[in-house]
Amino acid sequence: MNLPGQEEFEVSSACENVPTGELDSGPGSGPSPNGLSDTDRGELGVPKDPLLFIQLNELLGWPHALEWRETGRWVLFEEKLEVGAGRWSVPHVPTLALSSLQKLRSLLAEGLVLLDCPAQSFLELVEQVTRVESLSPELRGQLQALLLQRPQHLIQPIGTRPCQGSAHPREASHNEEAPLKEQRQNPLRRKLPPGAEAGAVLAGELGFLVQPLGAFVRLRDPVVLGPLIEVPLPSRFFCLLLGPSTLGKGYHEMGRAMAVLLSDPQFQWSVRRASNLHDLLAALDAFLEEVTVLPPGRWDPTARIAPPKCLPSQHKRLFSQLREVKGPSAGHGALTEDRYGHWPHAPSPELQRTGRLFGGLVQDVRRKASWYLSDFLDALHPQCFSAVLYIYLATVTNAITFGGLLGEATNGAQGVLESFLGTAVAGAAFCLMAGQPLTILSSTGPVLVFERLLFSFSRDYSLDYLPFRLWVGVWVATFCLALVATEASVLVRYFTRFTEEGFCALISLIFIYDAVGKMLSLTSAYPIQSPGYPAYGCFCQYPDLGGNESQWMRTEPKDRDDISSMDLGLVNASLLPPPECVRRGGHPRGPSCHTVPDIAFFSLLLFFTSFLLATALKHVKTSRFFPSVVRKVLGDFSSVLAMLLGCGLDSFLGLATPKLTVPSEFKPTLPGRGWLVSPFGANPWWLSVAAALPALLLSILIFMDQQITAVILNRAEYKLRKGAGFHLDLFCVALLMLLTSALGLPWYVSATVISLAHMDSLRRESRACALGEPRSFLGIREQRLTGLVVFILTGTSIFLAPVLKFIPMPVLYGIFLYMGVAAISSIQFTKRVQLLLMPAKHQPDLLLLRHVPLSRVHLFTAIQLACLGLLWIIKSTPAAIIFPLMLLGLVGVRKALERVFSPQELLWLDELMPEKERSIPEKGLEPEYSLSGDSEDSELMYQPRAPEINISVN
Amino acid sequence: MNLPGQEEFEVSSACENVPTGELDSGPGSGPSPNGLSDTDRGELGVPKDPLLFIQLNELLGWPHALEWRETGRWVLFEEKLEVGAGRWSVPHVPTLALSSLQKLRSLLAEGLVLLDCPAQSFLELVEQVTRVESLSPELRGQLQALLLQRPQHLIQPIGTRPCQGSAHPREASHNEEAPLKEQRQNPLRRKLPPGAEAGAVLAGELGFLVQPLGAFVRLRDPVVLGPLIEVPLPSRFFCLLLGPSTLGKGYHEMGRAMAVLLSDPQFQWSVRRASNLHDLLAALDAFLEEVTVLPPGRWDPTARIAPPKCLPSQHKRLFSQLREVKGPSAGHGALTEDRYGHWPHAPSPELQRTGRLFGGLVQDVRRKASWYLSDFLDALHPQCFSAVLYIYLATVTNAITFGGLLGEATNGAQGVLESFLGTAVAGAAFCLMAGQPLTILSSTGPVLVFERLLFSFSRDYSLDYLPFRLWVGVWVATFCLALVATEASVLVRYFTRFTEEGFCALISLIFIYDAVGKMLSLTSAYPIQSPGYPAYGCFCQYPDLGGNESQWMRTEPKDRDDISSMDLGLVNASLLPPPECVRRGGHPRGPSCHTVPDIAFFSLLLFFTSFLLATALKHVKTSRFFPSVVRKVLGDFSSVLAMLLGCGLDSFLGLATPKLTVPSEFKPTLPGRGWLVSPFGANPWWLSVAAALPALLLSILIFMDQQITAVILNRAEYKLRKGAGFHLDLFCVALLMLLTSALGLPWYVSATVISLAHMDSLRRESRACALGEPRSFLGIREQRLTGLVVFILTGTSIFLAPVLKFIPMPVLYGIFLYMGVAAISSIQFTKRVQLLLMPAKHQPDLLLLRHVPLSRVHLFTAIQLACLGLLWIIKSTPAAIIFPLMLLGLVGVRKALERVFSPQELLWLDELMPEKERSIPEKGLEPEYSLSGDSEDSELMYQPRAPEINISVN
Repeated sequence: MNLPGQEEFEVSSACENVPTGELDSGPGSGPSPNGLSDTDRGELGVPKDPLLFIQLNELLGWPHALEWRETGRWVLFEEKLEVGAGRWSVPHVPTLALSSLQKLRSLLAEGLVLLDCPAQSFLELVEQVTRVESLSPELRGQLQALLLQRPQHLIQPIGTRPCQGSAHPREASHNEEAPLKEQRQNPLRRKLPPGAEAGAVLAGELGFLVQPLGAFVRLRDPVVLGPLIEVPLPSRFFCLLLGPSTLGKGYHEMGRAMAVLLSDPQFQWSVRRASNLHDLLAALDAFLEEVTVLPPGRWDPTARIAPPKCLPSQHKRLFSQLREVKGPSAGHGALTEDRYGHWPHAPSPELQRTGRLFGGLVQDVRRKASWYLSDFLDALHPQCFSAVLYIYLATVTNAITFGGLLGEATNGAQGVLESFLGTAVAGAAFCLMAGQPLTILSSTGPVLVFERLLFSFSRDYSLDYLPFRLWVGVWVATFCLALVATEASVLVRYFTRFTEEGFCALISLIFIYDAVGKMLSLTSAYPIQSPGYPAYGCFCQYPDLGGNESQWMRTEPKDRDDISSMDLGLVNASLLPPPECVRRGGHPRGPSCHTVPDIAFFSLLLFFTSFLLATALKHVKTSRFFPSVVRKVLGDFSSVLAMLLGCGLDSFLGLATPKLTVPSEFKPTLPGRGWLVSPFGANPWWLSVAAALPALLLSILIFMDQQITAVILNRAEYKLRKGAGFHLDLFCVALLMLLTSALGLPWYVSATVISLAHMDSLRRESRACALGEPRSFLGIREQRLTGLVVFILTGTSIFLAPVLKFIPMPVLYGIFLYMGVAAISSIQFTKRVQLLLMPAKHQPDLLLLRHVPLSRVHLFTAIQLACLGLLWIIKSTPAAIIFPLMLLGLVGVRKALERVFSPQELLWLDELMPEKERSIPEKGLEPEYSLSGDSEDSELMYQPRAPEINISVN
Repeated sequence: MNLPGQEEFEVSSACENVPTGELDSGPGSGPSPNGLSDTDRGELGVPKDPLLFIQLNELLGWPHALEWRETGRWVLFEEKLEVGAGRWSVPHVPTLALSSLQKLRSLLAEGLVLLDCPAQSFLELVEQVTRVESLSPELRGQLQALLLQRPQHLIQPIGTRPCQGSAHPREASHNEEAPLKEQRQNPLRRKLPPGAEAGAVLAGELGFLVQPLGAFVRLRDPVVLGPLIEVPLPSRFFCLLLGPSTLGKGYHEMGRAMAVLLSDPQFQWSVRRASNLHDLLAALDAFLEEVTVLPPGRWDPTARIAPPKCLPSQHKRLFSQLREVKGPSAGHGALTEDRYGHWPHAPSPELQRTGRLFGGLVQDVRRKASWYLSDFLDALHPQCFSAVLYIYLATVTNAITFGGLLGEATNGAQGVLESFLGTAVAGAAFCLMAGQPLTILSSTGPVLVFERLLFSFSRDYSLDYLPFRLWVGVWVATFCLALVATEASVLVRYFTRFTEEGFCALISLIFIYDAVGKMLSLTSAYPIQSPGYPAYGCFCQYPDLGGNESQWMRTEPKDRDDISSMDLGLVNASLLPPPECVRRGGHPRGPSCHTVPDIAFFSLLLFFTSFLLATALKHVKTSRFFPSVVRKVLGDFSSVLAMLLGCGLDSFLGLATPKLTVPSEFKPTLPGRGWLVSPFGANPWWLSVAAALPALLLSILIFMDQQITAVILNRAEYKLRKGAGFHLDLFCVALLMLLTSALGLPWYVSATVISLAHMDSLRRESRACALGEPRSFLGIREQRLTGLVVFILTGTSIFLAPVLKFIPMPVLYGIFLYMGVAAISSIQFTKRVQLLLMPAKHQPDLLLLRHVPLSRVHLFTAIQLACLGLLWIIKSTPAAIIFPLMLLGLVGVRKALERVFSPQELLWLDELMPEKERSIPEKGLEPEYSLSGDSEDSELMYQPRAPEINISVN
């Protein structure tokens, strides 16, 4: 088959449309699979056409002051010259008048078309195009002089990073005229990939011509046409559209139409291969076949349409052609496949069952071993430094927050110091051994919640916590090893979005509830004195009269006199503050002695300040303000900055707010214990067996938490090359469970958000070279070094501990609230709950709502809410500790939902369960396709699912 | 001239495109100028075409289960059937494939076209359209049966208010088939205006046809076609597009193309008047000439485009045609005129100078007298009740806020009681007498700021404030009368946006500064005890030993014992709170006696809560949540609700926060003064003359504040019919100045925001009948009664005073901050300041930025900032009171700016000063028009300026 655009068919990537090639090949990006550089070949080795920069030079000022001015430019989108403002417009989707396309077509049909023109310079080219019969020699001379006149360019500083390996004229090109300094210094040059070519469209009204003059030239070899193009690129295409003034602005519009045509990849493909005028016109007609038309009365043609987030894929255009050739099933089958290709729970062959004991683990080790050396070599790239800084700060923030909260939850059995030490040891070990070294281990919400419940359970039964916890850890490790041995990780396919969202929502709600609850409990610790309070005040009373009093009078410095001894009539009392009073041997007396004023409300202020600040800073990332670097820093470090500001505010006022408890030296937070937990302590021996029961629950939790994260990290859209290691990861988590339990450190599993942030900071992508083009994603720098360095740094940060005691607890609660709110806001469930409050006509145009009746959507949401309510009730009873089992029960509920909802509805609302997936005939799956608009949503289905990153709180 | 759409040319109104007529002719809307109802005639009496509802019925299920289903409908925009979800999509701009339009054209060209078909029923119609040669009698019978088959409609509850006078089939129509119950109950029916007609498009794949069958019918008389259309409207157009399956989905797309064509007003106009096939095809070609084309690779044709806020006006399409006929100057001249027609400072002939003493006033009185009776009759409309409620609450909130702040600023010389009384008296009097009775008088920011300065001035020189103030008032009244006499109001033309924004920004900043400052001053009134505080506590000491103590012991109730008498060892002291202690004859002793804990931070919490809540509630209005009624209530009453919630929170905790001072009975807030202020008091006689100096400053302020508001209210876009009364308004303000000064009540001028809210609540507009169509604005219910009732209610609310003492001051400061922030956020100056912080590529696509170089925009902003800084410095010196003079000085600065900026730049950045406006040749004013895209912004210029409503804080 020789369909246009065919070679781009397999280059399947989200939003990657006119692949500008791998521009970013730093030293660490690994060996290329074949000898050819990515610039010249697509992923399948098919040669790709170079990117085309198109410029429209318009002839202005007829008849008195003729000059050429660049009034438009195109790569993917259009930029217009804003004359008054002296700047380029924002890139936007070009809109054309149909009539100008038609006029252009007839002008080309009658005009001069030179394909593979051998001109080697602009002068030669001009001579070629003016060799038209209708021109008298005199006019020809005039026209030539005019064409050679230097055009006006608006060269604007751009102020963004250059693409590496910026555009140089190819060696092969015969550039007689050296580019001007202005051209060479154009910052736009750095935005265009190497190998880019140019196309020049010259259009305008020229009164001395008696009939329109159209010429289209494809140069055999691209040539730098002197000062014609604002960047010194070799030009491949040249188009001249001049004529008498009868058409008015028509030439401008025809010029734009020509430029838009050239910027269309399919047209470009065809015209590069056209051999005569007929091919050129056929390409134009093919373009016309595919244009979208907006009716005149309903759309203002002067409105600018912002570039879509995701360009229509070349896929789609090909599909429609394929379908025409092969019949509807061709496109349709591929469509379904594509959707299933992105199926989140069947991401990779790593999750195929081998059927042998530890078979998956062995495979994982084998697979990863071959990459082990490159896992260190691939880290040699400057990008890794910034990744380390970013992830280090995030890790330390997490360690502080979770450490502080664990300390509170377990009454000091865990603490900030343990958190730092544990994070460093477990994280570094995981990075060295794991199947997916991009994973960042961390304390996560579910484990924190469980540990809190475990602690209160052991307190209720007066158990020695740490030894008990050690046995729980031992059992969890055992169970997890059993799960590894039986390759249980493949069961992760049964966790649909329904399960994930239930998991996330419950944990987030617990976070929010706890944060607010702890905050309010501060108001009972620091009560507010209301005016109805019968009496207040506090003074210091001395037990023995006479002696002590005079002694105290002597020790009292002079300048305190006016305050402390204003009541000399009282021989046995003073107004010293309670601690001072006690130190001097007195007794504080009075109802106010044990209240500290202002703390409650100040804590509340700190709490709200840190919460709102973290939320606001997060939003800065997507605001219009500040340069992108500043926005990124503010957004990425929102928690750290909010925490710092909270601490600053607190220390500025210097009030006695409750602070984070940090031991003053390097020893466990719990006084009197060593680093190694004794296996029995004060507990009876049989408790080591009984610990298997809570361990079973924790195993479920750890399995769910770990595997949901692992599946998300290893999704196909991240284009990981080195494969996943689900079994190996779980194996490592089990071993680390043993280690941390024995040392009395917190427990760790993979944390979704921070691991995704880690991957994100290691993205390899093409720079946004084409104007308005979204950057295309090339992959991740998969290596073990960044994680390792982060955890080594975290380990050395233990010496920061003395500084941490200045962090007020309300600030931590505020960050905690922020984490809960951020997590719950990110799930689809929340969006559906919001739909309950929206009148139908104001609801957003969700794909979901186009396919499922609103009442069914609401029913699904209501069932989810009911499940969540039930989980919450269980969590509030003494049986709270069994909540992991109930979370697992969501899988069963989801199974039962198949009786309530049709597979199509579940496909949109949730995902299909694996068996279901197979049992539904492909045709019946989406019956709308045969009924209403065939192409209605297919495009949207190509867009990869946005990763649901906040699937668990961490 | 007989151009299509001509009759709509003069119907110049913002966003009013396919005028659905005056649907809202309630009893109070006044007599219609001519006998014909507006439904049948445009504003110039040209008959208008009825609105067309177009429905696409698609033939589905070939070959087994043939059925007709309505899959699309159009009025202005397209609604698609979402089969899976069982609902109609949101209305969106229809997009077509060019190829389907072309296929449609060829099908129509070869098919059957019946114009003025005399069919009287669906049966007759079906017989007519199937009378085609190519059909065998058998097939004809089959086809007829199929066409008569009842189609499936999705009838969906809409849940919005019906249009008054809902659609009934016209009497003239010959509806043989009575409409089905389902059709008659369709809620869509109520959304369509009376007289609406329908168009039916039937399309689909019909395998037994050997060649495509196209038929287009225009019925001579519109006929209700049985159950064909989902609403029982008489149909005018009928189109049949059937054919063999070679075209696949082509028939669906052709059907859509036909429906979109019919929904285009120009096409509709032409096709209603077409006399043969040629005319029909010409109309289609004319449509094609005007379509906008989106290139295939850059725009996903399945994306839905939301309806634009403002439809392209029929103006524009006509202009382009006019221009083709008359040459460019025709459209251009009209364009310029239109922009000047909206010129904000030359809104009406009321501002033409008569040249006679009091000439303007006399004219105003004459003009308004003729409307006086209708000013009361026009209020008889239910809409006025809700307007009264809304404006009453807003007025009372204002009275409380400004009363409270005035009370503080003048140390009780003004207060809430005065504020209520003054508002009621002045407001009611103004409503009865004024030139523009829609104006709501209120204390405004500038006057409040001035009064505060005046009070501190009089305190610095130990003057008796109220008598001094009386003289200031007398002088101001005198000056204002002089301004009325000399028709000075015409000078308002020199207040450009530069002046207005300087005025608004300064006052807003003072508001913000004061709110925060007052809030912080509470922390010194209620100091925070930090741990470093040397001693604390407070006890109650009794002067004489023995007697009193035992007496106190007796009066002490039993249950207080444990707290109050825990120190029985001390014979002469107890821990009673200070007020109780003083009441019992003791002396509170100790450093904590005069501090109230927790108040400072609690006040801060109240302050932020009320500010954030008011801001958040304001935003609810534009959110997607809740039904529109709820959103409107929450948004409109945001200040009231925020205040109520603040009070609730305060009374819930019951802390001794500072509260609003309200006298307990009906007497002036200042103790010891009567209602009438004595003219001299304790001041020397010459002060009555010296008061002329501050009065001059206040006169400037009042003149600026009053006239800027008046100009905004009387702008052309509000379509006021009864004319303005600038001179009369100022005259009334002057008289009321005298009255309020004599009674010691606050001073009042017109308040912009609340007056605009008043007008807004009295808008007459067409209901959003066509789906997706923005409502078109018809005018304002101009009358005196709503204002009068509001102020009478405000007067009776004086008896609410005892309740007001529960309002905490921090809540008022919060509302005050909200007002300041809202006012400063609304001006263009703020947007330009924000541009300073935005990188160029993230800046919004403002019209301004398309025409003025960014550096010039920044320069203009910097000059404004410098002026503001200077004003602020003056305001902070002892010379603060002269700030009105400096505000006036902004007019001079603006004049000087003409030397720095070109007229074009000033046109975009500000406005032109009156002389300049005349002196610039029309052609030179906007030179870009001749240079770059002619039609680039013209559409945007048609949009009326959004009223800059927050021009002064009030």
